[in-house]
Amino acid sequence: MGKVIGAVDIGGTRTRVGLFHRGRLLARTSFPTRGLPEVAEALRMLLSRVKAEPASIGVGAPAPLDMRRGVILGCPNLPHWNGVAVAEELSREFGCPVYLANDATCAAIGELEFGHRARDFVYITWSTGIGGGIVSGGRVVWGKEGQAGEVGHMVIHPQGPHCRCGKRGCLEAIASGTGIARAARELLGRKLTAATVVRKAREGDPTAQRIVQRACEAMGQGIAILWEIFYPEMIVLGGGLTRAWDYLGPLVLSAAREFSRPAPRVELTPLGDDVGLYGASALHLHFPES
Amino acid sequence: MGKVIGAVDIGGTRTRVGLFHRGRLLARTSFPTRGLPEVAEALRMLLSRVKAEPASIGVGAPAPLDMRRGVILGCPNLPHWNGVAVAEELSREFGCPVYLANDATCAAIGELEFGHRARDFVYITWSTGIGGGIVSGGRVVWGKEGQAGEVGHMVIHPQGPHCRCGKRGCLEAIASGTGIARAARELLGRKLTAATVVRKAREGDPTAQRIVQRACEAMGQGIAILWEIFYPEMIVLGGGLTRAWDYLGPLVLSAAREFSRPAPRVELTPLGDDVGLYGASALHLHFPES
Repeated sequence: MGKVIGAVDIGGTRTRVGLFHRGRLLARTSFPTRGLPEVAEALRMLLSRVKAEPASIGVGAPAPLDMRRGVILGCPNLPHWNGVAVAEELSREFGCPVYLANDATCAAIGELEFGHRARDFVYITWSTGIGGGIVSGGRVVWGKEGQAGEVGHMVIHPQGPHCRCGKRGCLEAIASGTGIARAARELLGRKLTAATVVRKAREGDPTAQRIVQRACEAMGQGIAILWEIFYPEMIVLGGGLTRAWDYLGPLVLSAAREFSRPAPRVELTPLGDDVGLYGASALHLHFPES
Repeated sequence: MGKVIGAVDIGGTRTRVGLFHRGRLLARTSFPTRGLPEVAEALRMLLSRVKAEPASIGVGAPAPLDMRRGVILGCPNLPHWNGVAVAEELSREFGCPVYLANDATCAAIGELEFGHRARDFVYITWSTGIGGGIVSGGRVVWGKEGQAGEVGHMVIHPQGPHCRCGKRGCLEAIASGTGIARAARELLGRKLTAATVVRKAREGDPTAQRIVQRACEAMGQGIAILWEIFYPEMIVLGGGLTRAWDYLGPLVLSAAREFSRPAPRVELTPLGDDVGLYGASALHLHFPES
């Protein structure tokens, strides 16, 4: 079949690896995130299964990273990956170009190439953290060094809770899974996952409802800010918390409508948890010239 | 000399008209904003002065407008311009293509082509209102219908003052010249221009200082949000309030640094009040394909 494209999505908890041919996912695997050797082994295994060589490999990983050198820098969620020269090591082993980019930007590329295929949109990952990727006129907005899209670190409540980034009142500190869990610890006095807090809110627990309401209002405000800045075709959401969209969506949209003039169009990615993997397979098409 | 480019910047108070040849301003005039006949007359006068025909004309005007049809829609600051078919009428009179775009986007194009010439930046007009234009990788971020860049309508204080757009707590409602003047009316009980409020703050008036401090903090928060979203090379400011940058700048930058992780780089446009006029002269180079 000729050459295939390798795709890797390194997440805080799971790593996804896949092979693509002409935009079609041929083979995939996923496993709890470990190190780069496990990624290389998965790629070798899949390549031998489909009997093909890679033309290139795209890798998405949590920021911060050095795109030009293909090195993961100081990710708080993946401390043992700090300084790993992903591009150089995989390139040496597989003898092909390797591209490394922010995972949320990869997800935006997945949406652009395989999802709604809008030409102007902002993709938001609503999960343990909150990340983003921006597409304008069919092109990725990379920023000066490929680090554009940190929508989770917009300060939307200057006096709000402390964020792991060192500031206060970031969208992520209020609305992310981590933010929801922290609020639950403070207000309910218990260690609960965000998913459990959402479940308790659904069941009628008033404190859980207050926490979830606050998170959704913050997310709505963030969406509204992005809508005013970009006037895009749509805002696309993905990530673990969107699994409860039937409950959270109306709360988010109500806030978003209050905070932006034309009501924003918000869609969930149809690619689910694989959106970043799909995007990594098309990263070479969008990688900025150095 | 061959053909020239006509450039028009229709402002809330003044209109600027100029002719450009190979990126050089040949002739210019400005006058209190009236209607389209006065713009056409100024163009005719300048063209006869330099004895040239226009190859195209670029026009910047306050939003909202319909870029594709070249029509000014419902601008609250220019009510008598509502529905004026700028592109069609000027095109008929001067026999050349006419391009119409948002004035702040034109200013961003001026910065891109004639100012700092960064490839990734956000331009902010800090004046009676607050507008913006975004450049990513040397290209204008237009949004779905050319209306991207409404940075003044980010909601940064959900419980903040009412904005003319109908929402509450927009950056513009707090930090614009209009917002400063309104706060002065409420807190000082007097009708003062924003420039006068800033002067009184300089002179030590504590209420004026509080108003100015609040406006600058809001502007700093807005700049920080844009910095996190775009990680650009710089944020460029222009507009009337930047004339007091020696006093306002340190207050804005202190807030911007508090609200974003790497300290944002903020520059004033070197083109001053002509930034939009310069941009209008290069609008044809950046106009989106329809």
